Amino acid sequence: MKTLEVSLGDRSYPIVIGAGLCRRADLYAPHLAPGRVLLATNETVEPLYADDVAAALSDALAGRTDGDAAPVSRVVLPDGERHKTLDSLTPVFDALVDNGCGRDATVVALGGGVLGDIAGFAAACYQRGIRFIQVPTTLLAQVDSSVGGKTGVNHPAGKNFIGAFHQPAAVIIDVATLDTLDDRELKAGLAEVIKYGLILDAAFFDWLEGNMDALLARDTDALIHAIECSCRAKALIVARDEHEQGQRALLNLGHTFGHAIENLAGYGEWLHGEAVAAGMIMAADMSCRLGWLDEATVTRIEALIDAAGLPTRPPALAPEAMLTAMARDKKVSRGRIRLVLMKALGQAAVVSDYPDELLTETLAHFAQA
Amino acid sequence: MKTLEVSLGDRSYPIVIGAGLCRRADLYAPHLAPGRVLLATNETVEPLYADDVAAALSDALAGRTDGDAAPVSRVVLPDGERHKTLDSLTPVFDALVDNGCGRDATVVALGGGVLGDIAGFAAACYQRGIRFIQVPTTLLAQVDSSVGGKTGVNHPAGKNFIGAFHQPAAVIIDVATLDTLDDRELKAGLAEVIKYGLILDAAFFDWLEGNMDALLARDTDALIHAIECSCRAKALIVARDEHEQGQRALLNLGHTFGHAIENLAGYGEWLHGEAVAAGMIMAADMSCRLGWLDEATVTRIEALIDAAGLPTRPPALAPEAMLTAMARDKKVSRGRIRLVLMKALGQAAVVSDYPDELLTETLAHFAQA
Repeated sequence: MKTLEVSLGDRSYPIVIGAGLCRRADLYAPHLAPGRVLLATNETVEPLYADDVAAALSDALAGRTDGDAAPVSRVVLPDGERHKTLDSLTPVFDALVDNGCGRDATVVALGGGVLGDIAGFAAACYQRGIRFIQVPTTLLAQVDSSVGGKTGVNHPAGKNFIGAFHQPAAVIIDVATLDTLDDRELKAGLAEVIKYGLILDAAFFDWLEGNMDALLARDTDALIHAIECSCRAKALIVARDEHEQGQRALLNLGHTFGHAIENLAGYGEWLHGEAVAAGMIMAADMSCRLGWLDEATVTRIEALIDAAGLPTRPPALAPEAMLTAMARDKKVSRGRIRLVLMKALGQAAVVSDYPDELLTETLAHFAQA
Repeated sequence: MKTLEVSLGDRSYPIVIGAGLCRRADLYAPHLAPGRVLLATNETVEPLYADDVAAALSDALAGRTDGDAAPVSRVVLPDGERHKTLDSLTPVFDALVDNGCGRDATVVALGGGVLGDIAGFAAACYQRGIRFIQVPTTLLAQVDSSVGGKTGVNHPAGKNFIGAFHQPAAVIIDVATLDTLDDRELKAGLAEVIKYGLILDAAFFDWLEGNMDALLARDTDALIHAIECSCRAKALIVARDEHEQGQRALLNLGHTFGHAIENLAGYGEWLHGEAVAAGMIMAADMSCRLGWLDEATVTRIEALIDAAGLPTRPPALAPEAMLTAMARDKKVSRGRIRLVLMKALGQAAVVSDYPDELLTETLAHFAQA
């Protein structure tokens, strides 16, 4: 088992990574608040892992001498990005109320990124903030959304427009849960893994070029290594800039393009990771037009994304529509679209002072189907 | 003009109190973020003050050299506690989106406590938190809800069950707006004013006994003094305990009883201040049963609440129903209802280890109509 820490003063928390961890009562016990426990999961994950997790949580509660040992209650949400709306919070709030959860309750979020974002946001808002633990079951959630405290839901105008920074008390990553993840979701998660190589770890990018086949074959050791490198990078950046005042924005490589793709294609048509993959290619293209990346590097990036089974082109979208959708993204500052681009492989930067025509050229380049 | 500060490190902010302040561009200008401004108000306040406030905000924006000077946009919400639901956030989010507000936008909340709670919570959640300024127009909001950063909405199971701690950038209290407040609302606000005397300022309680007539006659100087004393007390407590880990709970004197009254009577039937007034009488009764207050003091408290034109008894409610509603309140810890009671006049305390039968006796005493 690997253990990392997200260093945030009195909000610091561990990330544990290994096989079979979601069944371990001893990993939950130190992080539960004294009150009741609500297990939030979705209809896909519930039949696979919820009984095991609930049993581990019950064991953790049974060992208490000074806390509430009421049974673990459960709420099951529909699965899919299109359900990540303000309304999706209501069943979580209702379950918390119905089960007598007070300010000393804990929400355990078992599922992918959508589930973790909804359950984490509900925990952030319920009685103005209760504890929660992330147990991510998709690769994307394991390497990205479960770490760093961003929670929230979508607005029709944009992804994650409504949310809170609310750090989990622990992130328990069980790579064994990836055994049941479908191939398309696994590949979508690899987009975020590749992202860490692109933004700050060229050596990890090299490693990925040599180990993509092992990852696609779900080799346990390869997955643990990739998740560890990804979480270490994310933890480092989050510790330096919890509320995205600066460097944390680097994590959005491919995301301003990607969010616009998701928004225009309709949430759920393109998986988040697929849109980010295409968005990273667009960012690489624009970085090349700025003279920062050479064409050989762009080709390497495209080759790795392709090897991961991810799209290397966005859907055909009109540049004007893309610009409008990008301008609505949260990364806009004083009317200017901020982009994360690459100065070199493994070295991303937030850029606002790019020549507008280069963005137009990139959008036009990818506008044809 | 009086100025107080809520001392919270880098989240510190001023409270300014005076007549005519809501029209002063110079009071808004230092506290606006560089982006766009949304004025959130309600249908009662909008025709009275929104044009003046919008004009002052426009003047403040016109003086900018380095910010967005787009026109001030406006959203008008329905008035009343029954509208303080999760759904009430949607028009605020939509207005923010429709007006191109980014993370650098500011929400100005012009209205009473309900409006400030909704608009403040929307600001807390929009793009995971944008700036907001409170311009409270009811006495209750001026002395209580606008200060301290508690924002949120109700759940059918309880008041303010869903919310966030999100401090305003400034609180601008214009006592001239009280001229248009109806009598019942003014009196409801006086309940919270009296509360500060009861919990930590016996001298202020004495002052209130001598000046209640001036307050009911809306004497400007009396109002400014009462609001200043109230806000100073609140600012002190909030600075010591922002997230209600301890002492801030003292501000809930009368509120656990009061929330149960509101909940059982139906939100809006009893105004919040009216329910708190009756709740403080119940807390005084129980404090007397514990031997902490003598009967003469209880009589003084009842007399002041009566002089303010507030109810001195709750509606007739079954003790069992009250207990159930109180047990759902946020002040529950490990299954035990925490109460704020009075050790003496001007000295409140949070109490969990009271004899249960005394709570039962108090509830039974007030159960008859």
